[in-house]
Amino acid sequence: MTVDEKKTTSFAIVGSGAVGCYYGARLVQGGCDVHFLMRSDFDHVQKNGMQISSCAGDFILPADQLQVYKNVSAMPEVDWVIVTLKTTENRLFADLVGPLLKPDSKILTLQNGLGNEQQLADLFGKDRVLGGMAFTCINRLSPGVIDHSAHGYIKLGMFDAGLEKSPARFVSDIFNRCNVPCDVLTDLNYGRWEKLLWNIPFNGLSTVLDQTTDLLLANPEGEKLVRQIMAEVLHCARANGANLEDELIQKNINRTLEMGAYRTSMHVDRQNGRELEIEAILGCPMRAGMEKGIANPQMQMLYQLACMVADK
Amino acid sequence: MTVDEKKTTSFAIVGSGAVGCYYGARLVQGGCDVHFLMRSDFDHVQKNGMQISSCAGDFILPADQLQVYKNVSAMPEVDWVIVTLKTTENRLFADLVGPLLKPDSKILTLQNGLGNEQQLADLFGKDRVLGGMAFTCINRLSPGVIDHSAHGYIKLGMFDAGLEKSPARFVSDIFNRCNVPCDVLTDLNYGRWEKLLWNIPFNGLSTVLDQTTDLLLANPEGEKLVRQIMAEVLHCARANGANLEDELIQKNINRTLEMGAYRTSMHVDRQNGRELEIEAILGCPMRAGMEKGIANPQMQMLYQLACMVADK
Repeated sequence: MTVDEKKTTSFAIVGSGAVGCYYGARLVQGGCDVHFLMRSDFDHVQKNGMQISSCAGDFILPADQLQVYKNVSAMPEVDWVIVTLKTTENRLFADLVGPLLKPDSKILTLQNGLGNEQQLADLFGKDRVLGGMAFTCINRLSPGVIDHSAHGYIKLGMFDAGLEKSPARFVSDIFNRCNVPCDVLTDLNYGRWEKLLWNIPFNGLSTVLDQTTDLLLANPEGEKLVRQIMAEVLHCARANGANLEDELIQKNINRTLEMGAYRTSMHVDRQNGRELEIEAILGCPMRAGMEKGIANPQMQMLYQLACMVADK
Repeated sequence: MTVDEKKTTSFAIVGSGAVGCYYGARLVQGGCDVHFLMRSDFDHVQKNGMQISSCAGDFILPADQLQVYKNVSAMPEVDWVIVTLKTTENRLFADLVGPLLKPDSKILTLQNGLGNEQQLADLFGKDRVLGGMAFTCINRLSPGVIDHSAHGYIKLGMFDAGLEKSPARFVSDIFNRCNVPCDVLTDLNYGRWEKLLWNIPFNGLSTVLDQTTDLLLANPEGEKLVRQIMAEVLHCARANGANLEDELIQKNINRTLEMGAYRTSMHVDRQNGRELEIEAILGCPMRAGMEKGIANPQMQMLYQLACMVADK
């Protein structure tokens, strides 16, 4: 791939929150043709550009180097739509993604949880859908001001594992050349469930109890409950074709103990009074297990409790 | 029973919180010989007496009409020990109840939850143990100052349902003559589980989520969860010989909807940073079900979550 190839590849960023802005900005910095769909921050960014402080290098994108839009109708069709909406807004897929697609455009969702690729596939055909996970700490400090404090790599793959992987390799190459470490997954489904193994107990319990992850594990009954929920997730994963290893439970406990007083994304959302990504992180995996006949009473109760907290 | 019979019946109140003070004060007012074991409020009450504002009639007990003690060692042996300790202090039974017993003394526990009678029976013999439930709203406003705002009746019975009921009838008669409506239960075990059917979901969930009872039922997933937990409690109750009727679930839902924004006792304890009665209300009934082979995963998770909240 040459510089010209990057330039001739066009991207739309649908959902310009912290994650969308950061990765979109890296693509701009690397010379790609990027179009941002922006709502709350539109006026500020159109006037003042973006400012990225990043552990991988700070940079500024002046307004005249950015293509930002308030409405999809003003945007061009693109080669790649990168979806970074909050999953609570997935009902907007048809309106926000549809108009941006050419017959051979690809869609990459970097959203949390399970079910996003399927929803996109149902609307736009599964062959063009890719999913990825962003392992990173990124916050939006104010309009157009993004703080990327740690990590940043992406793992992505084809939604349909049976398909040829060249689109995944193509976009992964672009990310890597734009200072975003990126790997291609042979099994996106495995990767999703592997991340859910942590996200379900820790996002769920931290949100319901309003506790940081260290407190969840500090109590013996808490650690026991985390392990029980992980065991349920493991069974749901396996019944859904993701053959997670038993050892992952202990590995995730160890990793969490090293993280200290960590606030999960859903917990932060609760504390800031924002909508919670309950369906993608808790509801969809729970139902995926139930549909395969897996008993997951604690995943169900965690989902119910999260709904009660969200409704408060 | 004559006035003289009341006078010749002696009582010890072990645990002079709101409930102990109120019922003890009614017995004093009715002419009984009552000895209060008091810790934090001892100095104040010994000097200033007790002041009861009650929906059943206000009254004052001057210090010279009260027999209060700071230590069990100073107390006489009595005919009846009424246990109104918080269940989190049940480890003190041997030290606080034992010294007060004559060979034929009876013990009546008015504590919350399951397991208190059994613990007393293990220590002092089952034949002398009675249990009761106080259906009432009583708060201690300050040392010696008690506010009894609603209800107040007691239902009590022999711990061993096979025993002759004359002790239960005897103490019930005394309560009734002292302005405390009281009924004798033919089946204390049924009564305990009937109360647990409400207490487990509502005390548990309100404490874990820090929500009043109306909010628990306002969310559809919340009402579903309450019903699921009640169904588990029902199965545990039946396996333990308390044949609760299915209709009680709907009755308890209806009753709770009428209560409005009610704060359960455990929720109040949480908000005031006090110890939670987790074992008596959640742990002991959960284990009673498990020991009979009843699947109660949601009761187990509720217990675990309450332990995590208590440990915060």
